[in-house]
Amino acid sequence: MNDKVIGIIGGMGPQATADFYMNLIKKTNAKRDQDHFRVIIDSNVKIPDRTEAILHNGESPVKAMVETAKNLEMLGVDVGCIPCMTAHYFIKDIEREVSYPIINAFVEVKKHICEFYPKIKNIGVLATTGTIKTGLFEKYLINANVIYPKDATQKEKVMEAIYGSEGIKSGVTEGKPVQLLEEAANELIDKGAELIILGCTEIGLVLKHEYMGIPLIDPMEIVIDTLITG
Amino acid sequence: MNDKVIGIIGGMGPQATADFYMNLIKKTNAKRDQDHFRVIIDSNVKIPDRTEAILHNGESPVKAMVETAKNLEMLGVDVGCIPCMTAHYFIKDIEREVSYPIINAFVEVKKHICEFYPKIKNIGVLATTGTIKTGLFEKYLINANVIYPKDATQKEKVMEAIYGSEGIKSGVTEGKPVQLLEEAANELIDKGAELIILGCTEIGLVLKHEYMGIPLIDPMEIVIDTLITG
Repeated sequence: MNDKVIGIIGGMGPQATADFYMNLIKKTNAKRDQDHFRVIIDSNVKIPDRTEAILHNGESPVKAMVETAKNLEMLGVDVGCIPCMTAHYFIKDIEREVSYPIINAFVEVKKHICEFYPKIKNIGVLATTGTIKTGLFEKYLINANVIYPKDATQKEKVMEAIYGSEGIKSGVTEGKPVQLLEEAANELIDKGAELIILGCTEIGLVLKHEYMGIPLIDPMEIVIDTLITG
Repeated sequence: MNDKVIGIIGGMGPQATADFYMNLIKKTNAKRDQDHFRVIIDSNVKIPDRTEAILHNGESPVKAMVETAKNLEMLGVDVGCIPCMTAHYFIKDIEREVSYPIINAFVEVKKHICEFYPKIKNIGVLATTGTIKTGLFEKYLINANVIYPKDATQKEKVMEAIYGSEGIKSGVTEGKPVQLLEEAANELIDKGAELIILGCTEIGLVLKHEYMGIPLIDPMEIVIDTLITG
């Protein structure tokens, strides 16, 4: 039962990694420890910042990500995943260096929307500026109208909620970051969004499932379902 | 900053492992991902049940634990830990097979009590029957009067809260297991306990810090403090 070994290329950030693993455990059908999946995690927080690399020509994270992925290969994982949407910018560079498959969160989100919300065309996205600038959402959601917050909202609300001194990456998951993200979600709904993708794993830590009557999709929950049933 | 690599010999059980890692993250002084500790986790849920091995001559977990510890060594961890008190029964067999030090939760608890509660002699313990039967608490708390629940309470309340169909290992952390453990704690207090050790990592998921005015000590919190400051 649940015999495959799951690898987590983690640490981007650490909270998202720990939360991802806890959610995987909660969603697994198990009565005893031994019924769960064996999971190997390299939570390599020392991987250079992905947003810095994409937006400001900062140090590339590829070398460290490959090293992390190879660590999991060395310990024999059957399938890998990356609990960080922004890091998916580099997924092709990682995939080609290891022998096990890595679940692509963007591909899984697209499949999910096609299956469960086939008529929805206006898709809002809350994500880091780095992830937005990658163009990954437009690339994968090919027939959708992808809606982002305006620049000021992106900077002062979304990025502040994640990176601010009272932000999620500092360990704050109640109060201010929730308020900032809800204000950004309101803007997306005003602009016509019928569904919002929580396109940064940190955002999925504070917003859940539904807001103002429209579905919120957490790509990491979909990745977990894929790992469990796939 | 926080440059050492921490290894977690995990999966005993998986919830305790994920919770341990989340608490380590929360307690670490960090403003950015890169300020955290790199942590490598082998959550090897397939390790044979420790209680079965100790109490009923079940399959020994030593071989699988050593393999897990060696996996972490292969990836270069500087220090290891085991988020499972019962598994400490086998710690000597693991330590001698790897080159990195493994923090011993029992040793750290003893140091903690000596430092912060030097006058307390009557120490209650809530733990799995396997952990109790190991005699590890008496071994390490050498000058204390160690108090356990009576046999019926141990079986029908403590073990039921952990292993029951509505127990913590099945993912239930509210309601019934809390009630069962509080009833067991009441019995320890009636028997004179001035402090209670939450001697199974699962119990620390549902009881916290203080109950009926007496301190509850979670050994895993003490291990985390040792990892961060040590």
